[in-house]
Amino acid sequence: MVSEKMYELGTKKSTIRTIFEFGRKRAAEVGEENIFDFSLGNPNVPTPEFVRQAAMDILADMEPSAVHGYTIAPGNPEVREILAKSINERFGTNFAGKNLFLTAGAAAALTISFKALCEEGDEFIAFAPFFPEYRCFVESVGGKLVVVPAQPEDFQIDFAAFEKCLTPRTKAVIVNSPNNPSGAIYSEATIERLTELLALKEKEYGHPIFIISDEPYREIAFDGYPVPYVTKYYANTLVCYSYSKSFSLPGERIGYIVVPDEVSDFGKVYGAVAGAARVLTHVNAPSLWQLVVGRCAGKPSDISTYVKNGQMLYQGLIAAGFTCVKPQGAFYLFPKALEADDYAFCERAKKYDLLLVPGTDFGCPGYFRVAYCIKTETIERALPLFKKLAAEYLSFA
Amino acid sequence: MVSEKMYELGTKKSTIRTIFEFGRKRAAEVGEENIFDFSLGNPNVPTPEFVRQAAMDILADMEPSAVHGYTIAPGNPEVREILAKSINERFGTNFAGKNLFLTAGAAAALTISFKALCEEGDEFIAFAPFFPEYRCFVESVGGKLVVVPAQPEDFQIDFAAFEKCLTPRTKAVIVNSPNNPSGAIYSEATIERLTELLALKEKEYGHPIFIISDEPYREIAFDGYPVPYVTKYYANTLVCYSYSKSFSLPGERIGYIVVPDEVSDFGKVYGAVAGAARVLTHVNAPSLWQLVVGRCAGKPSDISTYVKNGQMLYQGLIAAGFTCVKPQGAFYLFPKALEADDYAFCERAKKYDLLLVPGTDFGCPGYFRVAYCIKTETIERALPLFKKLAAEYLSFA
Repeated sequence: MVSEKMYELGTKKSTIRTIFEFGRKRAAEVGEENIFDFSLGNPNVPTPEFVRQAAMDILADMEPSAVHGYTIAPGNPEVREILAKSINERFGTNFAGKNLFLTAGAAAALTISFKALCEEGDEFIAFAPFFPEYRCFVESVGGKLVVVPAQPEDFQIDFAAFEKCLTPRTKAVIVNSPNNPSGAIYSEATIERLTELLALKEKEYGHPIFIISDEPYREIAFDGYPVPYVTKYYANTLVCYSYSKSFSLPGERIGYIVVPDEVSDFGKVYGAVAGAARVLTHVNAPSLWQLVVGRCAGKPSDISTYVKNGQMLYQGLIAAGFTCVKPQGAFYLFPKALEADDYAFCERAKKYDLLLVPGTDFGCPGYFRVAYCIKTETIERALPLFKKLAAEYLSFA
Repeated sequence: MVSEKMYELGTKKSTIRTIFEFGRKRAAEVGEENIFDFSLGNPNVPTPEFVRQAAMDILADMEPSAVHGYTIAPGNPEVREILAKSINERFGTNFAGKNLFLTAGAAAALTISFKALCEEGDEFIAFAPFFPEYRCFVESVGGKLVVVPAQPEDFQIDFAAFEKCLTPRTKAVIVNSPNNPSGAIYSEATIERLTELLALKEKEYGHPIFIISDEPYREIAFDGYPVPYVTKYYANTLVCYSYSKSFSLPGERIGYIVVPDEVSDFGKVYGAVAGAARVLTHVNAPSLWQLVVGRCAGKPSDISTYVKNGQMLYQGLIAAGFTCVKPQGAFYLFPKALEADDYAFCERAKKYDLLLVPGTDFGCPGYFRVAYCIKTETIERALPLFKKLAAEYLSFA
């Protein structure tokens, strides 16, 4: 009567959803302030004042039809020129407005890219740990997701494992740096080695292999740690960007895809992006927000809260006896669970009302994710509980 | 290298697009004011002041995270309650918030509905003349679009032709009233006959047949002409609504799907809707606009310009010698072309810089569409040109 696949996708509770509902139930019992919810990647830094002001100015000063009318499908041409110029200034690239396609956030940007590229039998590679929705997005366009096991020492790329995953069916490789859930940033050395290997494989297979660079966390990089702009290293790169985290606008759905001139057959790729956006019924990215991000191009993200939270949480967990790669960006830590079964570990953490997500959900069993885009004070109060939780295990050591 | 199908969908110029580009070229040659562009369904009535004010108030007064944060996938629960209540007050229905699923406009609402329902081999029926994107949307989810020929006397339903199209493979019937492109509104008698026939066929085939009621023009009905609320006549109805035309917000992408309790297996259908929205990566409908339409629930659309334009254009065309069904709503006329080949007719109209869309694009050869959501003054100046165009043909009579 309905599509069983859609029904399943719409009703099967994700782990995060189940944790969220547990949290709501417990909050009703013991009070909101006694629940330590580290499960959600919902930015807690308020939308910058300059974003609010830009939206207010546009609504107050511009003709309504110029604000709320349809834009052409790739987005307002002036806004795309401004954004391209801003990217060029920041990263030394050479894009024009025609290289950008505005989208309803990164989820749309990714799925549009997958759908544009995917042909019968194509494989898309993700590096564990990875954002779980990649699987849903890739499979929904008819592709197969191939997962490269994690390199847990530093969450860079395990190249030996990666090379085994590359086949003539590989259409694209998903890069997500700064990474959800590990907080790692791929170093320039990693990007160079990755792109050199892919260039060789393109020659060997005789067809393009794309990098799809998923960059919602680009601005959230600590200690001036550089986040290489992948198009400068590799021609067949599509960049998927979102303002959800950088300007704390996740509900408004605004972002873009960059299709560089240098991709093999720009016209084909950009045309297929437009077709994919059409059938996924992203008529145009929300028009007010196109104008807002145009006015705010190049303005800085406020990452001070994430810096502070990340440091405090990392140091606290290490002091409590956890093993964890030091975060370089985004707003997640991905420590080793204190027992092999990460689900069992996260269940035990619930005893202290610590809500954590098992690493298995990210393709990386034996770990867990801690999202620290929450109040600093909540982290302070949670640290003694992490200590108690660790002590349960370490007392056996 | 890319999906050829996506490339084709993204680059093949639609007739309307080709006309639009011709218009831009001619405007550069003879001046904007000498181009009479009746090709686009882009509302020209400004967004109501109360909508602008609601957006300004929300931005000024509310916590940014409450405005711009993710909402749950079906949309803000409070807003859905308000909208359900408003529908109930206007149409005597009995919906709650849980019956609504907010979407990025009607295009998303339709495609989500098609994708939620579509199983292998399913057919979706549209009545000519119909919005051309239906074909793209239905085929993109794997369905087959079956077209019932038009009943050109009044653009109600040709039931003899319709009955021949119904088969055990029929999953749903698309109703679009007030209609794009004919301007017709299905009378209560039409809706009753349609739903009685479908109820019989449901019994005969032993499975539900859905009505998908595509209602972006619901508020644009002239002379108090009633637009029956289809859920009151037929249980298996999904309503797809949009604020694009009623509040002139097409660029912002905001609308909803109504899934009544009465559909066969509400949980299955609503769950499949959620799954389809997820794989089409409509994470949530744009969050600011969810709040805005909540605050503006039940406020009236200003249709006075469309009333005036429609009357003037209809009377002018009739006086010039055209045959045309009198419009009851929306902002289109769909007159008979003055030669059998509607493409040739629209080409000839270009001589007068009258930009019209051939009826073949809407599944109805021999007709043409005139969109009158433009300046009244443009219509006034265009009428003598329509007269000259008609005279070219009628002088042969």
